[in-house]
Amino acid sequence: MSTGFSFQEGDGFKWERHISADDVQQFAQTVGDLNPVHLDAQFAKNSFFKKRIVHGAFLVGLISKVLGMDFPGQGTVYISQNSIFKRPVYIDTTVAVEVKVTQVIEAKRRLVLDTNVFNSNGEVCLAGSATVWLPG
Amino acid sequence: MSTGFSFQEGDGFKWERHISADDVQQFAQTVGDLNPVHLDAQFAKNSFFKKRIVHGAFLVGLISKVLGMDFPGQGTVYISQNSIFKRPVYIDTTVAVEVKVTQVIEAKRRLVLDTNVFNSNGEVCLAGSATVWLPG
Repeated sequence: MSTGFSFQEGDGFKWERHISADDVQQFAQTVGDLNPVHLDAQFAKNSFFKKRIVHGAFLVGLISKVLGMDFPGQGTVYISQNSIFKRPVYIDTTVAVEVKVTQVIEAKRRLVLDTNVFNSNGEVCLAGSATVWLPG
Repeated sequence: MSTGFSFQEGDGFKWERHISADDVQQFAQTVGDLNPVHLDAQFAKNSFFKKRIVHGAFLVGLISKVLGMDFPGQGTVYISQNSIFKRPVYIDTTVAVEVKVTQVIEAKRRLVLDTNVFNSNGEVCLAGSATVWLPG
């Protein structure tokens, strides 16, 4: 009997997305994270980062988008996400979100994936991994 | 010389937040995660979850809000976040977000914290941990 579970290590998806100042403003208002390092250019200039940065949780949202809409896609259940914020993503950046299967656990219908977000220079900004479950 | 780094294990903060259908709609549009399990009641009814659920990344955004605005507060640099999505959070839920220091690494000005999100029954929905850095 086929289980319809046909994933292989290395399978994945890559998606590019521009993040504008308006996007960050909307995200801040929606979740209530009004940290001025994201919203206030003058504050950011005097901060560790020197410029306004995108919320790390915004980047996690982009990973969630890819997992739930692109690969593995609709029906995917998010089990866990680990994220290391290695570099800031500045406002007005086009990021690339890449997910790639590193482990196939067919008996549990689970996948482990590397989930990375790169800036437009190809530098990794969020390095992470996710576990997802694909209900039968 | 004082380093001004005076945190102790057990220090933390707890914050409650209601998440409405409009909040989830806005979040979906902002990050582009239009997965119908979050947006479409009929689709959700036939899904594993039976009802519309809040994006896991929304909950990560709430943790980020607490870390950056409440405790440790302004200036906090997010190093990493691990999240296990143990239970869904349904739309129109008041969640409690709790962060609590589990490790103080004074020499590196870092804190490790448990970061948990509870539903209104007190059940843990997101179980996680974060590492943050407090620039000197």
